[in-house]
Amino acid sequence: MVNTVTVSIDGMGGDYAPGMIVEGVELACQKNKNIRFLIFGDANILQDLLTRHPKAQAVSEVRHAPDMISMDDRPTTALRSGKNSSMRLAIDAVKNNEASAVVSAGNTGALMAMATIVLKMMPGISRPAIVTSFPTQNGDCVMLDLGANIECDANNLVQFAVMGEVFARYELDIDHPSVAILNVGVEGLKGNVAVKEAAAILKNSSLPVKFAGFVEGDDIGKGTVDVIVTDGFTGNIALKTAEGTSNLIIFFLKKFLSDNLMGKIGALIARPALNRFKSHFDPRRYNGAMLVGLNGICVKSHGGTDPIGFAHAIEAGVKLVEQNFNKVIKQDLVKLTDVDQNKTLESNTKKALN
Amino acid sequence: MVNTVTVSIDGMGGDYAPGMIVEGVELACQKNKNIRFLIFGDANILQDLLTRHPKAQAVSEVRHAPDMISMDDRPTTALRSGKNSSMRLAIDAVKNNEASAVVSAGNTGALMAMATIVLKMMPGISRPAIVTSFPTQNGDCVMLDLGANIECDANNLVQFAVMGEVFARYELDIDHPSVAILNVGVEGLKGNVAVKEAAAILKNSSLPVKFAGFVEGDDIGKGTVDVIVTDGFTGNIALKTAEGTSNLIIFFLKKFLSDNLMGKIGALIARPALNRFKSHFDPRRYNGAMLVGLNGICVKSHGGTDPIGFAHAIEAGVKLVEQNFNKVIKQDLVKLTDVDQNKTLESNTKKALN
Repeated sequence: MVNTVTVSIDGMGGDYAPGMIVEGVELACQKNKNIRFLIFGDANILQDLLTRHPKAQAVSEVRHAPDMISMDDRPTTALRSGKNSSMRLAIDAVKNNEASAVVSAGNTGALMAMATIVLKMMPGISRPAIVTSFPTQNGDCVMLDLGANIECDANNLVQFAVMGEVFARYELDIDHPSVAILNVGVEGLKGNVAVKEAAAILKNSSLPVKFAGFVEGDDIGKGTVDVIVTDGFTGNIALKTAEGTSNLIIFFLKKFLSDNLMGKIGALIARPALNRFKSHFDPRRYNGAMLVGLNGICVKSHGGTDPIGFAHAIEAGVKLVEQNFNKVIKQDLVKLTDVDQNKTLESNTKKALN
Repeated sequence: MVNTVTVSIDGMGGDYAPGMIVEGVELACQKNKNIRFLIFGDANILQDLLTRHPKAQAVSEVRHAPDMISMDDRPTTALRSGKNSSMRLAIDAVKNNEASAVVSAGNTGALMAMATIVLKMMPGISRPAIVTSFPTQNGDCVMLDLGANIECDANNLVQFAVMGEVFARYELDIDHPSVAILNVGVEGLKGNVAVKEAAAILKNSSLPVKFAGFVEGDDIGKGTVDVIVTDGFTGNIALKTAEGTSNLIIFFLKKFLSDNLMGKIGALIARPALNRFKSHFDPRRYNGAMLVGLNGICVKSHGGTDPIGFAHAIEAGVKLVEQNFNKVIKQDLVKLTDVDQNKTLESNTKKALN
């Protein structure tokens, strides 16, 4: 018997909300019969949209939220005056155990701030992180933090390693994921204090993490490891640089193929292959970044995604719920927070750094 | 009348030295008749190689260097025991005004350390930076620092902005290059202290820099601005992430095109277009990063490049010499180091941050 998972949805978050949201819910229902939804937002509009999506309507309950967070609201503003917003009420539903996961395509900073205040950090975690997976030459790879924490110390990075390892194990179904820290060189003496200290802790700990040392930026695309740990500043820039480079290459591929007749004919003949190539990198397949480290599953969808992408974000959240993702992280964190072990870790770190 | 430029060459640096080096010198001679070379390294081997490259032989003087720096020597080791290495003697030649530029494909850390000690920093510069250009959707773009400085403060970033602006003006022939700081968002409140302070200084200064604020990782490939300023940790990771992503996309393009017959036929017909696409992103065209901020032109070639790439690195150095690159930077730096102005900058910065 399969249990039903209830997902709360920020019905008003994202560039194309609420229409895109309800269509995404409809698509998710078609794929998975075991999801129920609580959709927060303008009840009249949402009810009206649902009448046109009968599958979604059958499994959704609309809850009215009088306010909404805009894409450019500051996190502090959202916290202060967003208590009756669709985003906040959707998060509250997870806190109140009415839903097992929340999905929002809204303002990332506001979502981070409100989810952290409402759901609270897991024991042993100082800061939540944004994690997602993306394609490499060697299967999918997980990277965190992607922008939640601008400055990180060694302990933050170690916590990210533990959470990323569990994420790769459960979301990507990798048995023993390898974990590395992103750095400017693979040699131990390279990098800033945080990455060197974090590497020393991971190397000498008895944590259940297969630590592979440092990797460099080009290892992201190579798929050298399964999990890449970095601070939110570097991670955000690396992820967006990869997106931008991908767009750049495709832009010039199209340009050179359409510049002359032979290119056009060749592209026409190879179109099915080129379409498979294109769909392999379809960002919608990878939509849905998770805020890990909180007492609750919170998924951030890209703000500009379409219904297919939003349905992917919902599926990612449901998968994490079904696999008891947060429970597994908590079990691993116990090993990290054990006081005696922390002492050993500290002394090992000092040894390793001297 | 065109003046002759003398370039000193680290004959033993790089994965395929000295054979690749001498071939690269030969190619550079074929393109530009106004270069003379001092090649440092094992004199017997170099002389022998030159007999097979008569054009290079005619314009090169070999100087014997008994030692060489290996690719994994630490910078401190190189400084201490590399005084008679090919790399060190090649740098010394610039210091002694025997050559106008030095080019090495050897160990980056050692080159940075020795060039800084020998050539010394320009007045007004606290740290040299590694700068290079690369292709975007909107022409070429300059980025610095690419790995010389792991941690940077606001003043470092402002100095990089001044040097990058001059580099774009002279190396890329852009009249009024736009300059931006790499960040995790374009809004002023995002990012770490260093980027926020540097942005405030550049915004309020009378420096001759067309400052465009913040850009994000995906703006690198878009070519949103001409010069991107960042710390060496982030810059190194962004550059290598772009390389890795580019390889990833090409890998899957080849894979999907070769997976079935129609893909193969299409690719065959479109081959000339695909070859132009490939050569547009040929890393050899962009080989040759400069260490800016030193009293002398110092160019770092990729260690694994081939003669075509090494010849590009030589040409990049010669172009900077011919354009009096360092003299222009010094003129702009005077504006930055002027004490009164610095006071104004500081007070403006405080105002902007409050």
